[in-house]
Amino acid sequence: MKVAIVGATGYGGIELIRLLRQHRHVTEISVFSSTQAEEPLTSTYPHLQDVYKGRLQPIDTNELANEYDIVFLSAPPGVAATLAGGLLEGAAAIVDLSGDFRLKDKRVYEAWYGREAADTSLTEQAVYGLSEWNEQAIRGAKLTANPGCYPTAILLGLAPAVKRGLINMKSVIIDAKTGTTGAGKNPSSITHFSEMNESMKIYKVNTHKHTPEIEQLLAEWSPEAGAITFTPHLVPMSRGIMATMYAECTSELNAREWLDVYKHAYERHPFVRVREKGFPAAKEVYGSNYCDIFLDYDSRTNRLTIVSVLDNLVKGAAGQALQNANIMKGFDATEGLEQFPIYP
Amino acid sequence: MKVAIVGATGYGGIELIRLLRQHRHVTEISVFSSTQAEEPLTSTYPHLQDVYKGRLQPIDTNELANEYDIVFLSAPPGVAATLAGGLLEGAAAIVDLSGDFRLKDKRVYEAWYGREAADTSLTEQAVYGLSEWNEQAIRGAKLTANPGCYPTAILLGLAPAVKRGLINMKSVIIDAKTGTTGAGKNPSSITHFSEMNESMKIYKVNTHKHTPEIEQLLAEWSPEAGAITFTPHLVPMSRGIMATMYAECTSELNAREWLDVYKHAYERHPFVRVREKGFPAAKEVYGSNYCDIFLDYDSRTNRLTIVSVLDNLVKGAAGQALQNANIMKGFDATEGLEQFPIYP
Amino acid sequence: MKVAIVGATGYGGIELIRLLRQHRHVTEISVFSSTQAEEPLTSTYPHLQDVYKGRLQPIDTNELANEYDIVFLSAPPGVAATLAGGLLEGAAAIVDLSGDFRLKDKRVYEAWYGREAADTSLTEQAVYGLSEWNEQAIRGAKLTANPGCYPTAILLGLAPAVKRGLINMKSVIIDAKTGTTGAGKNPSSITHFSEMNESMKIYKVNTHKHTPEIEQLLAEWSPEAGAITFTPHLVPMSRGIMATMYAECTSELNAREWLDVYKHAYERHPFVRVREKGFPAAKEVYGSNYCDIFLDYDSRTNRLTIVSVLDNLVKGAAGQALQNANIMKGFDATEGLEQFPIYP
Amino acid sequence: MKVAIVGATGYGGIELIRLLRQHRHVTEISVFSSTQAEEPLTSTYPHLQDVYKGRLQPIDTNELANEYDIVFLSAPPGVAATLAGGLLEGAAAIVDLSGDFRLKDKRVYEAWYGREAADTSLTEQAVYGLSEWNEQAIRGAKLTANPGCYPTAILLGLAPAVKRGLINMKSVIIDAKTGTTGAGKNPSSITHFSEMNESMKIYKVNTHKHTPEIEQLLAEWSPEAGAITFTPHLVPMSRGIMATMYAECTSELNAREWLDVYKHAYERHPFVRVREKGFPAAKEVYGSNYCDIFLDYDSRTNRLTIVSVLDNLVKGAAGQALQNANIMKGFDATEGLEQFPIYP
Repeated sequence: MKVAIVGATGYGGIELIRLLRQHRHVTEISVFSSTQAEEPLTSTYPHLQDVYKGRLQPIDTNELANEYDIVFLSAPPGVAATLAGGLLEGAAAIVDLSGDFRLKDKRVYEAWYGREAADTSLTEQAVYGLSEWNEQAIRGAKLTANPGCYPTAILLGLAPAVKRGLINMKSVIIDAKTGTTGAGKNPSSITHFSEMNESMKIYKVNTHKHTPEIEQLLAEWSPEAGAITFTPHLVPMSRGIMATMYAECTSELNAREWLDVYKHAYERHPFVRVREKGFPAAKEVYGSNYCDIFLDYDSRTNRLTIVSVLDNLVKGAAGQALQNANIMKGFDATEGLEQFPIYP
Repeated sequence: MKVAIVGATGYGGIELIRLLRQHRHVTEISVFSSTQAEEPLTSTYPHLQDVYKGRLQPIDTNELANEYDIVFLSAPPGVAATLAGGLLEGAAAIVDLSGDFRLKDKRVYEAWYGREAADTSLTEQAVYGLSEWNEQAIRGAKLTANPGCYPTAILLGLAPAVKRGLINMKSVIIDAKTGTTGAGKNPSSITHFSEMNESMKIYKVNTHKHTPEIEQLLAEWSPEAGAITFTPHLVPMSRGIMATMYAECTSELNAREWLDVYKHAYERHPFVRVREKGFPAAKEVYGSNYCDIFLDYDSRTNRLTIVSVLDNLVKGAAGQALQNANIMKGFDATEGLEQFPIYP
Repeated sequence: MKVAIVGATGYGGIELIRLLRQHRHVTEISVFSSTQAEEPLTSTYPHLQDVYKGRLQPIDTNELANEYDIVFLSAPPGVAATLAGGLLEGAAAIVDLSGDFRLKDKRVYEAWYGREAADTSLTEQAVYGLSEWNEQAIRGAKLTANPGCYPTAILLGLAPAVKRGLINMKSVIIDAKTGTTGAGKNPSSITHFSEMNESMKIYKVNTHKHTPEIEQLLAEWSPEAGAITFTPHLVPMSRGIMATMYAECTSELNAREWLDVYKHAYERHPFVRVREKGFPAAKEVYGSNYCDIFLDYDSRTNRLTIVSVLDNLVKGAAGQALQNANIMKGFDATEGLEQFPIYP
Repeated sequence: MKVAIVGATGYGGIELIRLLRQHRHVTEISVFSSTQAEEPLTSTYPHLQDVYKGRLQPIDTNELANEYDIVFLSAPPGVAATLAGGLLEGAAAIVDLSGDFRLKDKRVYEAWYGREAADTSLTEQAVYGLSEWNEQAIRGAKLTANPGCYPTAILLGLAPAVKRGLINMKSVIIDAKTGTTGAGKNPSSITHFSEMNESMKIYKVNTHKHTPEIEQLLAEWSPEAGAITFTPHLVPMSRGIMATMYAECTSELNAREWLDVYKHAYERHPFVRVREKGFPAAKEVYGSNYCDIFLDYDSRTNRLTIVSVLDNLVKGAAGQALQNANIMKGFDATEGLEQFPIYP
């Protein structure tokens, strides 16, 4: 399998290289960049010295479409919307890690993203790549929209309860915490070490772009879905997302029954681990494709607390992208992704 | 003013020393410990070399009661309950930093703390030291129960909305994040650097002892108060608490009006800063007695998000304790507490 | 005392404000900036809300020279060289925190800084503000060149041994470690949280600008001084410098005698603490003007290891600047600087 | 290949499991513990849920010796000295990660470790497992003493210069920095997050047990070797070692020639990467078996600065242990160790 990565200089891009190198059916990994073409990737990432020798190549849609089996688009917003049309004419399967094709409703995209949406023909064709819940559609897809890091954690956490109608959809509140790699490679004052260390920061309260993405999926899953509350926070760690979710229960399940609902939902899905005991920690999934889910039912308030934890660059980005590519290409979903969490 | 600190080897204790040294009316600071008596405090805390020369003295209730103007009790759970009776017979005013006297209902204490409650005569006498909202009672108090770190952040954040009946009391959800000093000086595997760094952890979901403390105050403030959802998280920073609170609005205030409610509530209280713009960060109150409050009203969900931020060892412990001592003794509440946040 | 800070938006500038607010003789603190004039400082630093209300003013040399008692220059390289001439015509005493006036030899400056040196008339007039060792000259100075953060730690550590001729000057090797605030407020990929956390980095090996500054002082102190080895490292903390220094002993002092040499050298200097026991840690001076010094003599190798630790923004910048201003103006050197280390 | 790990609950033990799971010839991984026998390893390490199902078994020397191909001893000091005799009677090859068999001279061991040394018959039999430099001896070994984390970094950094006689052996000074996992799994006040974060600490100056281990190897490599200066520091990161080494040059090599010496020395050794440009950072080897080496020759002082960087739990412990096991068993040295650094 020949693989191309467009936008390989971002964190998602190099994480893909790390994972693809463990994949037994990948014979070639080529990297492309519109801005740094001709440079070896080691100029930006010296940790790749002696490990990955590829040079960044200029983007050539035709070549990408026809000489690769899989093209991962890991570029800034808007780039995939421009490239995808041409790429789809070729033989390559496409996995896009940006938000360009995730939202089906153009007006919603434009309201939250503040930019023009991709062509409807593209967004209609794109399959939302939440691997565990959309496997069948992904299997036949030519273009997969890889979910956002927060939506992956949140939707995996909510799905079993929502799909079985066990919670009040109007009551959903999501308090999420991320490490700084979620903000990408470009330095900024918010992610400046001097100001981020020994601190934490709330941001984009009620305005984060991942909100409509979560709402779109919930609406597909439940007729009662509506607006949710979603609050992101930056905590002083490089990798990791923890989403703490709250909802009123409409059922009368006890703790054991809740656990069974979740265990059952994910029993065939090795990358989702429902925790039987102990409180989860972000480090427990570090560098791996796992999403850990923890549940607590509080009879005092009749609320369910769901906690999901993942590595935002793996299950929240490159890992799920590879999982989706595996599904699209008929490989085992876990191929290239069997690495353990690095602990501690 | 002669001051005694019992249990001075904990983080609350040494923070008191730091603050008291800036207090213009403090003439003596003596430190007491049941376990490390006779040792200089610098054996435990070398950063105090040349700065604080006191030796830890064994606890003598009679001496404490009669030779000091203020006694701060900063000891493990249960110690204050044992000492306070004797101390109250003397002249000293007492500020207790433990949870021993915060809860009025013995059964509630025993259910959440899993140990015997203090004598009712003591808990009845104790005044809850939420400085900004209980100033009058504190002024005449002989024994002040200093609030917990989380309750301080949370109650300061909720008070204006609750007291004016502007939110649905059944809808209150609190997602709180703390630095590790909240867990105290004793090393444990949870706060082991190797496992805490590059991680974050949720803990004591729906079972944290500060829950009934918050509920008790809300019940004093609103007839509709009931059980709340309160979830603590450990984030990889030493100091700081951020509490993110969610509630449904029962009023129709817009963002500006919400800000006015809060600005008005705290206009005479210099240690509470209501943020006009920008998202708050924990570091912005580091080492200071400030509590910063941020508000966001979301018309899509009709929910109010309240964020409050403080330094758990200052406004969440030693700083508020000193503020209370100032009020009890008739000093300006800010005496010894004018230090800026250290940033960055 | 009216105080002006030019370049107040950098970390050194706001740290000066923090310290000056504790100074009993300061009646006014005004802030100046060439780039952000007219803005309130809270736009850049929200932690100053309700605490410091000054607006940044455009730079007016005449006003600065004549309406202030002290002008602190905390601007980028080259700015002080341009402003100082005009300022010196006025009444204000000047403390410059940049490297513009530290080096006496223009060629050395130009070789290491890669830019034109300030006028010789200025550099000749400037007094090197290593407070503990240059007090007399500082007392009469109109223009003080505040030492660099590394040179402060290193020179305080080496001085007693060098001045008494107890070490081989050709053998001096300095391995220094700094927190990221030493790199200033501007974000860069090196100080990007995502890449700095859980990492450490060596940089500018044998080429750091502070090298000639250290060498200049050593040459003043010892006829045998020559080139030194100085290696800086960035470690994942915001504040703090630890300099580990190695030298061959030319004397036959034992551990106790070494301690006595240092204790004696600093006995009248409250900000230098010679450690009697325990290994020093950066946090033990956090936020304070202390420099802690630790010594170890190894008879196996006949080498002395000297470790000095300080807060790079306090004793390594703003704190020492204020200490110098106090000396220049005849105040007690400790005025405004009595704050304890914040621990932990 | 059946593999046993004795002392699997330490960080070295679980890191071995992580790496062994990537090894294509490992069919079984069993874990042993004298203190936690019968418990599943997930009780201590929940990140292994669904990933590693082994239960800790009580130690049975006979079983270990005869039913496994490789036994890794990852136990506290002294345990290996007790077990190894019995194990050597069996068929298993043994790799010991403790210091029990590293020092050939009993008196040196006893002076630095403060405990009785292992039997001479065992230490004589043990081969020092510095994989890159001792490959031939390791190939035929039955018992390999895996090097300490610091010695691995330091010896890989010094070897090419020492073996070719290019530096003055009396001038060697080593300033090393480690993350906290080097201090192991047991919590202590030094590695308590609250006190370690935003700090760094020097420790065991001139007294660290790894000193004689380094000196022993240098003495094997150079007749002029003697006592070295070695200073360890703890920096606030979980993983990683950076050793900065200084030595006077006895040759007249320029920068390019020094690079060639090192490139040549390691050209057949994929895990040692000699850096051609850029300053190294600890994170660039995170989670991998690489040791990165950087060189700087300073003509002003005629000193060479050598910097080596590795992940203390991989190349500094479990990774090199597996590399040694591969060599002992005739596998490719890189088997199970091809994983990339995780960056960032």
